[in-house]
Amino acid sequence: MIVVMEAGASPEVIEAVEARIRAAGLGVHVSRGVERTLVGAIGDERVLEPENFESMPGVERAMHIVKPYKLVSREWHPGRTVVDVGGAAIGGDVVQVIAGPCSVETDEQMAAAADAVARGGARMMRGGAFKPRTSPYEFQGKGIEGLRMLKRAAARHRLPVVTELMDVRTLDAFLAEGVDVIQIGTRNMQNFDLLRAVGRVDVPVVLKRGMSATISEWLMAAEYVAAGGNHRIVMCERGIRTHETAYRNVLDVTAIPFVKRESHLPVIVDPSHAGGKAWMVGALACAAVAAGADGLLIEVHPCPREAWCDADQALAPDEFASLMVRLAAVAGATGRFLAPAPDDRSLAPA
Amino acid sequence: MIVVMEAGASPEVIEAVEARIRAAGLGVHVSRGVERTLVGAIGDERVLEPENFESMPGVERAMHIVKPYKLVSREWHPGRTVVDVGGAAIGGDVVQVIAGPCSVETDEQMAAAADAVARGGARMMRGGAFKPRTSPYEFQGKGIEGLRMLKRAAARHRLPVVTELMDVRTLDAFLAEGVDVIQIGTRNMQNFDLLRAVGRVDVPVVLKRGMSATISEWLMAAEYVAAGGNHRIVMCERGIRTHETAYRNVLDVTAIPFVKRESHLPVIVDPSHAGGKAWMVGALACAAVAAGADGLLIEVHPCPREAWCDADQALAPDEFASLMVRLAAVAGATGRFLAPAPDDRSLAPA
Amino acid sequence: MIVVMEAGASPEVIEAVEARIRAAGLGVHVSRGVERTLVGAIGDERVLEPENFESMPGVERAMHIVKPYKLVSREWHPGRTVVDVGGAAIGGDVVQVIAGPCSVETDEQMAAAADAVARGGARMMRGGAFKPRTSPYEFQGKGIEGLRMLKRAAARHRLPVVTELMDVRTLDAFLAEGVDVIQIGTRNMQNFDLLRAVGRVDVPVVLKRGMSATISEWLMAAEYVAAGGNHRIVMCERGIRTHETAYRNVLDVTAIPFVKRESHLPVIVDPSHAGGKAWMVGALACAAVAAGADGLLIEVHPCPREAWCDADQALAPDEFASLMVRLAAVAGATGRFLAPAPDDRSLAPA
Amino acid sequence: MIVVMEAGASPEVIEAVEARIRAAGLGVHVSRGVERTLVGAIGDERVLEPENFESMPGVERAMHIVKPYKLVSREWHPGRTVVDVGGAAIGGDVVQVIAGPCSVETDEQMAAAADAVARGGARMMRGGAFKPRTSPYEFQGKGIEGLRMLKRAAARHRLPVVTELMDVRTLDAFLAEGVDVIQIGTRNMQNFDLLRAVGRVDVPVVLKRGMSATISEWLMAAEYVAAGGNHRIVMCERGIRTHETAYRNVLDVTAIPFVKRESHLPVIVDPSHAGGKAWMVGALACAAVAAGADGLLIEVHPCPREAWCDADQALAPDEFASLMVRLAAVAGATGRFLAPAPDDRSLAPA
Repeated sequence: MIVVMEAGASPEVIEAVEARIRAAGLGVHVSRGVERTLVGAIGDERVLEPENFESMPGVERAMHIVKPYKLVSREWHPGRTVVDVGGAAIGGDVVQVIAGPCSVETDEQMAAAADAVARGGARMMRGGAFKPRTSPYEFQGKGIEGLRMLKRAAARHRLPVVTELMDVRTLDAFLAEGVDVIQIGTRNMQNFDLLRAVGRVDVPVVLKRGMSATISEWLMAAEYVAAGGNHRIVMCERGIRTHETAYRNVLDVTAIPFVKRESHLPVIVDPSHAGGKAWMVGALACAAVAAGADGLLIEVHPCPREAWCDADQALAPDEFASLMVRLAAVAGATGRFLAPAPDDRSLAPA
Repeated sequence: MIVVMEAGASPEVIEAVEARIRAAGLGVHVSRGVERTLVGAIGDERVLEPENFESMPGVERAMHIVKPYKLVSREWHPGRTVVDVGGAAIGGDVVQVIAGPCSVETDEQMAAAADAVARGGARMMRGGAFKPRTSPYEFQGKGIEGLRMLKRAAARHRLPVVTELMDVRTLDAFLAEGVDVIQIGTRNMQNFDLLRAVGRVDVPVVLKRGMSATISEWLMAAEYVAAGGNHRIVMCERGIRTHETAYRNVLDVTAIPFVKRESHLPVIVDPSHAGGKAWMVGALACAAVAAGADGLLIEVHPCPREAWCDADQALAPDEFASLMVRLAAVAGATGRFLAPAPDDRSLAPA
Repeated sequence: MIVVMEAGASPEVIEAVEARIRAAGLGVHVSRGVERTLVGAIGDERVLEPENFESMPGVERAMHIVKPYKLVSREWHPGRTVVDVGGAAIGGDVVQVIAGPCSVETDEQMAAAADAVARGGARMMRGGAFKPRTSPYEFQGKGIEGLRMLKRAAARHRLPVVTELMDVRTLDAFLAEGVDVIQIGTRNMQNFDLLRAVGRVDVPVVLKRGMSATISEWLMAAEYVAAGGNHRIVMCERGIRTHETAYRNVLDVTAIPFVKRESHLPVIVDPSHAGGKAWMVGALACAAVAAGADGLLIEVHPCPREAWCDADQALAPDEFASLMVRLAAVAGATGRFLAPAPDDRSLAPA
Repeated sequence: MIVVMEAGASPEVIEAVEARIRAAGLGVHVSRGVERTLVGAIGDERVLEPENFESMPGVERAMHIVKPYKLVSREWHPGRTVVDVGGAAIGGDVVQVIAGPCSVETDEQMAAAADAVARGGARMMRGGAFKPRTSPYEFQGKGIEGLRMLKRAAARHRLPVVTELMDVRTLDAFLAEGVDVIQIGTRNMQNFDLLRAVGRVDVPVVLKRGMSATISEWLMAAEYVAAGGNHRIVMCERGIRTHETAYRNVLDVTAIPFVKRESHLPVIVDPSHAGGKAWMVGALACAAVAAGADGLLIEVHPCPREAWCDADQALAPDEFASLMVRLAAVAGATGRFLAPAPDDRSLAPA
């Protein structure tokens, strides 16, 4: 940590700062410049909080020099993490596409969605059973029964499932139903009790970025999960809120290379929620892969305009299938490949 | 709802839109302009979702005409709500100041804080027992024991207490300990399960605005609470996240008159978290009252620079006392007055 | 400047950084911590650019310690500047209200507007002759003839005038017509050639903050004016662009105390453009004064709904007059007073 | 335009709205719903301004239904525009890379830069002779002499040049020196007098998006240029300002497909300014091409760390050359190709 003293700070106030650093068990280094004196802390500065120094007389500001995250940082763990999900990898040389409808509606819809996902060549399935909705009067998801419908549909094609956990009280049910990957949604990125809870289980976690979270806050949210012992974390960029209202969110592609440089965790992207319109999904998905994303979370619905939620952003089965072909080409142009679909007898001609 | 058709939309696609509106039980009104045809829905449009129309062929966009909130809206409840907290009012002609430390630390600190709050003339006390912290390695609050310390300290001056609930599993303990007002923090504004839970209890709720929430989303979060039956809701503006980094957040004073026009609920302001520095609190608190705020949430600590959290934003007791004098003048200039402190024998000379 | 080296930076790369600092004529101070080595520059670091260091091998980041502005900073000029405009002061103990229509339309409209301004008790007049409009098809202002209409109307009540300069080529006309205060609009805050031009004349400048400018960029824009020799600068906060769409902009009241702490220049506020609606102007104007603003720029039109531009944000004469009474009370509550209107015979009863 | 009346608006106020629309020569259509009455204008609504209606009694809000831009919109000009620059196309099936240093420094630097640009395979050159700098104390560019240095260096490889115009008074010099493409910078996107001036000349314009401009404002800025008669406009996305501070700006890739859907103009991207760091340029450039960008503006400097401006974002010649190979692959994956370099004898072995 560096403490910048105000111009003309007296020796007494500088000594008070030094004393406070020493009291925390760290060493002190003072540098007297022409306009400012700086007091540096030598040791693990994470034990110091800049606010405690900024409230002292004569202090202009105090700042950490090292990053606040450790377990998820690449500096402390230089290799790259590959998260294994029932034999399918997220991270490494593959681009893993996770597809499915926004919300679980009926067994028929889910069966048709699973067929579309598998036929398109994806090998993981998404679907929401608990839905965070802005309005209390909108459809809130099918709940536990939805989890079962999702599992049943996905099982036909042996697809692991990804679904969102909103309430810590339903975590046991998620485990009991065999959810393969737990998604933490954008509105819960700083629901710290929920993060702590999924940090204690042995199921991979997809952690969506908060709508206006900084990269640092997002990595600190992952640090909460990792600190509990669960290191199988996948970061998911899904667009940030800005001044622009022409589309729902602004997909922050810069976050992809940035997080991969700061952290060893894989990064996937949700182009469907980012743009909010089906016609944008292709361009955003290709951009994400070209920028280095390890995977995508794409909304596919057997009949988008009948969807019970986010009807305007889901792809129809044929749109999804042709997007997969484009994605394979872009993945190839960046030296990677789409994860091969499992050997799936259900798709074979009779 | 209005559906704007694309230029040159065919009669068939227009009819399909009409049919969909009628299928939901609403009437239809078509307006043919020079460049666009508009299809309007007649009836309670809240049952329609624009996304379902925007995914139809020939539709350019669809939009609601009425606001999504009802229970919290002033259109449906024209009077103003005054929330009673143990005899102290939030709303109406008083400006209610709620003061206390960021976090509950020790019985001694809390006793001194309660003295400062009461001597300054405030009649409600705040203090955090469960703390949402960006880092898992920082102090996370004293928990249930903290609630008891807060209640003990406040009881000496008969101050009702306000404290933050983060986890739905601790709600029962909040009720058992007699928490007078439950605060929902900025990071949990869209933790819908938590909102539903506090919607079912009979304790007033202070609902902080999310860091990048729109006014509409904030009022819809209040609608979640109200929909459960709890109408004792106080909205709290605490600064929004913008591009500016010179201060922690930008206090959105425009939200004060705007929410009071849209909703019947009282609006208070947290100038301490908004600016993030003690020296800004006075100016922001005065601005909030001048803009019509019904109250303030101010951090006061017996010795700010020793505070365990947010040390740089708490006021010292003497700073708080002199701010209360300025606030009384500003409240007076806007035709209101600071809530009178209760007859408090503990402050009387021996 | 401080250069933070990467973990494990070799002695050679550290020496290269030191050499580069020394080559610029500054001294060097190296601090070796547990996780990072820091290299500090001793001397006037403004001659160094962090980017040149951040592109060197082994450097994690480089940052300035001192602020980039000098002439406008309070550190270098501790007193407060009061800008004199034909005998009326901006800065000091007065709150100066500048009022008038968005755009100059006709001699009749301007005469009625000047009457409203003077009767309300303001002693400076605003009015736009050159209008920055988002669309090329909207009314662009009356031009030079508009300047003359503004001067004529204001002269009847001896009001100095404030009007916006958009194009450097019309500066001579502004001087020839006797414009009393030149306004630089939000879209031109970083039109550096325009800033340089008004820096060379002897007329006060009102410098509006850019819609998404940081405080630092805004003060640097003022530094451009001051560097040319013109130190009669008034900073004007007018709302910033954020994610919120319920109102046009978010008035950043925190900027008022912040700029007054960083700079010796006076700060005024434009509540009319900030909110964009007439009904919000009162609350925002009171908030600005309570937060310490040195003045206000308020839109007043003899008949708002007939205004040629921004019809929904102008106050009618009677609304303006009653707002002035409220403002006087708020100014009083903060220990200041509204600037007294000049002895104005034109307002006297016959 | 649609005018939404308040709940319970009286027949008189509705008639007043109707009368105002008719007075402007448009037809009226009234739709009475359950909660609201809507009044629609039939005809070219662009002549109406919503503000004039929003200030009328009984009106809740008024909004345009059609887009404000015409000349640049795809609705009015369904084909795609290809801008020809001395035989090189921007738009169509090519991806055109424009490369060169941030600022023109010396003849030697420019010659080396031009070699790097041409050897990398790009066929247009950029370089700044007039530099918009946040600080008045930083290097402001070489001016007219810089234009000449740029033209001399580019001529060796027959590369057309792109350079920024900041001041309308230097436009004649740009024409006299034979600048091939005039760039309007992000800070001048709403410098309307400058836009009008370049709208009257016969030189292609690259129009950078303002740092916090909406897509609509950006297209309206292009409309200013087009309204003057110059339709050779290239839109350039360069990152927007958000809350994120880990990188300079957030490249808004969604703007690429969105603007290409709304407008017939080509869209290029500046990945160098967006991220602000050389190591990010590759990922952002690939993402932009994958999302459909028609070209890129890339900073290349013979020796980045010695650059006089933005030293940390320029690529070295070898980095640029290898990026061009990756870009060719990504362009191919999206069915396009990099513009072929001209037959360039200066690059041939002796």
